[in-house]
Amino acid sequence: MAEELDVPETKVLAIASHVAYGYVGNTMASFIMQSLGCEVTAINTVQYSNHSGYRQVKGRKTTAEEILQLYEGLKQSYLTDFDVLLSGYTPSAEAVEAVGKIGRELRFKSTTKPGSFFWVLDPVMGDDGRLYIPEDEVPAYKSLLREADLILPNQFEAELLSGTKITDVQSLATAIRVLHTIYRIPHIIITSIRLHPLTGRTLPSTTDTPELGPGEQETMTCIGSSATSSFHPRLFRIDIPAIPVFFSGTGDMFAALTVARLRAEAASAHVDNNSGWTSPDDVASTDLPLAKAVEKVLASMQAVLVKTYEAMQEELKGLENAVQGLGKGEEDREAVEKRRRLLRTKAAEVRVVRNVGLLKKAPEEWSEKFRAKEVELENGTPTENGRKPDELGVTKLGGDGEGAIHIETA
Amino acid sequence: MAEELDVPETKVLAIASHVAYGYVGNTMASFIMQSLGCEVTAINTVQYSNHSGYRQVKGRKTTAEEILQLYEGLKQSYLTDFDVLLSGYTPSAEAVEAVGKIGRELRFKSTTKPGSFFWVLDPVMGDDGRLYIPEDEVPAYKSLLREADLILPNQFEAELLSGTKITDVQSLATAIRVLHTIYRIPHIIITSIRLHPLTGRTLPSTTDTPELGPGEQETMTCIGSSATSSFHPRLFRIDIPAIPVFFSGTGDMFAALTVARLRAEAASAHVDNNSGWTSPDDVASTDLPLAKAVEKVLASMQAVLVKTYEAMQEELKGLENAVQGLGKGEEDREAVEKRRRLLRTKAAEVRVVRNVGLLKKAPEEWSEKFRAKEVELENGTPTENGRKPDELGVTKLGGDGEGAIHIETA
Repeated sequence: MAEELDVPETKVLAIASHVAYGYVGNTMASFIMQSLGCEVTAINTVQYSNHSGYRQVKGRKTTAEEILQLYEGLKQSYLTDFDVLLSGYTPSAEAVEAVGKIGRELRFKSTTKPGSFFWVLDPVMGDDGRLYIPEDEVPAYKSLLREADLILPNQFEAELLSGTKITDVQSLATAIRVLHTIYRIPHIIITSIRLHPLTGRTLPSTTDTPELGPGEQETMTCIGSSATSSFHPRLFRIDIPAIPVFFSGTGDMFAALTVARLRAEAASAHVDNNSGWTSPDDVASTDLPLAKAVEKVLASMQAVLVKTYEAMQEELKGLENAVQGLGKGEEDREAVEKRRRLLRTKAAEVRVVRNVGLLKKAPEEWSEKFRAKEVELENGTPTENGRKPDELGVTKLGGDGEGAIHIETA
Repeated sequence: MAEELDVPETKVLAIASHVAYGYVGNTMASFIMQSLGCEVTAINTVQYSNHSGYRQVKGRKTTAEEILQLYEGLKQSYLTDFDVLLSGYTPSAEAVEAVGKIGRELRFKSTTKPGSFFWVLDPVMGDDGRLYIPEDEVPAYKSLLREADLILPNQFEAELLSGTKITDVQSLATAIRVLHTIYRIPHIIITSIRLHPLTGRTLPSTTDTPELGPGEQETMTCIGSSATSSFHPRLFRIDIPAIPVFFSGTGDMFAALTVARLRAEAASAHVDNNSGWTSPDDVASTDLPLAKAVEKVLASMQAVLVKTYEAMQEELKGLENAVQGLGKGEEDREAVEKRRRLLRTKAAEVRVVRNVGLLKKAPEEWSEKFRAKEVELENGTPTENGRKPDELGVTKLGGDGEGAIHIETA
């Protein structure tokens, strides 16, 4: 009765946050990776009551020293035979450095066993032009990039790390090229970019849906690339229908699913274990294991988020009953609004455990629609546009990132 | 493609330990309950690198104040609508009191919605006559017992809590009767007692297997009871073949599976939601939802532990290779022994994630064998033997438990 799992046994060290209630960080990622058959060792960088979407949180950060101590504990009992490191939210620059120390040590250890270590780095720093970590974490993250095999920034984080302002697919492709070239990162995925349907310009996730024609639905775009041996990008994109709600933890969900799916795709493809599961140069972007993996990841996510959206609508029907008992006076209005907001946030928690089947097997309804496409660029591919990295104003940002952190997406 | 889950949606607050590597405490219980469809809110009472079976651990205990703060965080955002509290390892008397405060508050809150709260208390205190918590935790645990709906002590813990020396099934039945009567606990399971096949006397888990006849296999016995309305025990037992290895975390595995399975059985049976899912007095012990639940729990556990045992044997084949590279000198002997011991402990980690199907559906191979049987007592049932609780020397132990904690199982 053992279940058929299409992901090979994979030992993952997951360093991210723990929340008691709800699904973000390791609370999201561990369960998903385990459900897909991975052995997960979770070092929790915080223990919080809930995620920050509730705008009020209690709990405690794990110190950098404690993170290193936990790793020491693993080492002294010979428990560090990891295939993958997935690092996510880390609450201080010192803690990012601690994660870097761990990642480098695992990388060094793996040099005797090529291909035995793969680092997925989710540089959780901010969104929509706003940092939600201390400023000194940005250079700390930059100093890790050279060690990472796959990074998963959002648009804002990609701008910070590449020093490239992203306004459309063309500049996004440039940012990816910079990250491949400067930091020698084999794989990059920039998740959920909103592009204006007419102008093709990026939109901040906070703006309203642009005017759409009849039957049109707003889409989100995910763009990825696995570099060639000379670190040229091979770009693919997948467009998915947008759901008009902000769900917390979707980045962690994406990362966890990607670890499992990429591992499975890499195992069945001809990837080079010596250098971060890279594919031969003649593999087209849409045939990359990364592209195949992301197709499945997005299909599973879409299915679970649609279920979540439906369940949320159902739950919100009872919302007005729940707040009705509260006071009616002017001074109570704020309390009622707060209660309403908290109930909405709770209703938007991703419905993970009852929909785990959709994660284990990407539903065909979606996976047939979410096929990776070549990225079409007006001025040719960013590897052909004749500009060198230092002409992009990037090399000066390889250091401490000063000036980059105030970028605002318009 | 949503999976069929036979456990109704259940919101569980799980308060127990977190280990990065391996499977004990919440690391074991959360994944199992989630896999069976429960929504789990995990408050971690420690964050350790690994479990104590490795005899060396790094990490940090969560303070009692932090536990209460995390609960406050949940409360302020209206996130405490739990159906079940599962409380396990708690590292200090103050932390046990914090858990008590949380449990009592959830109990009080549920008085407006009868049946909406059920507390499963695993009083993790020690084993084989040895306490592994500070002594002042024993009275702290005792003060929680009246609030619990189901407790899951091992033999030693049942002795401590009931003040009754357990030497055979008869005295074990007495201990259960005492716990029902004095503390008004509706449901009790005493997990994994070893009984001598000839004398019927209890054996400490550390002794060698007693001499067995040809074809005989050593068994472990699990004894449970749901009280009648007058708090008389209804005792059932299930005997399972013993696996000759100590696996860490099996208590947590048992607790997690029991939460899910009992919830499912209770939902489909005529239990009284007003008083801890109790069954009408005319339900026989072997027909209790608790008995039905434990049959499934043990079948799943046996299947997973057999798989674990097989995988362990396979892993240990490589053990001598792993230690061969180490030094040969007399002074290295200790280091080699330590390395060997650590590798053995690692090899004995329960294989949970790749065998989750066996947890979700109790395999028929085992579930047909593990049928609950009536407990036969020489002197009749402990409710009929005419002795009152205070004649058992028990009432005086309801307080601080002095004297009880030095019990040694012979």
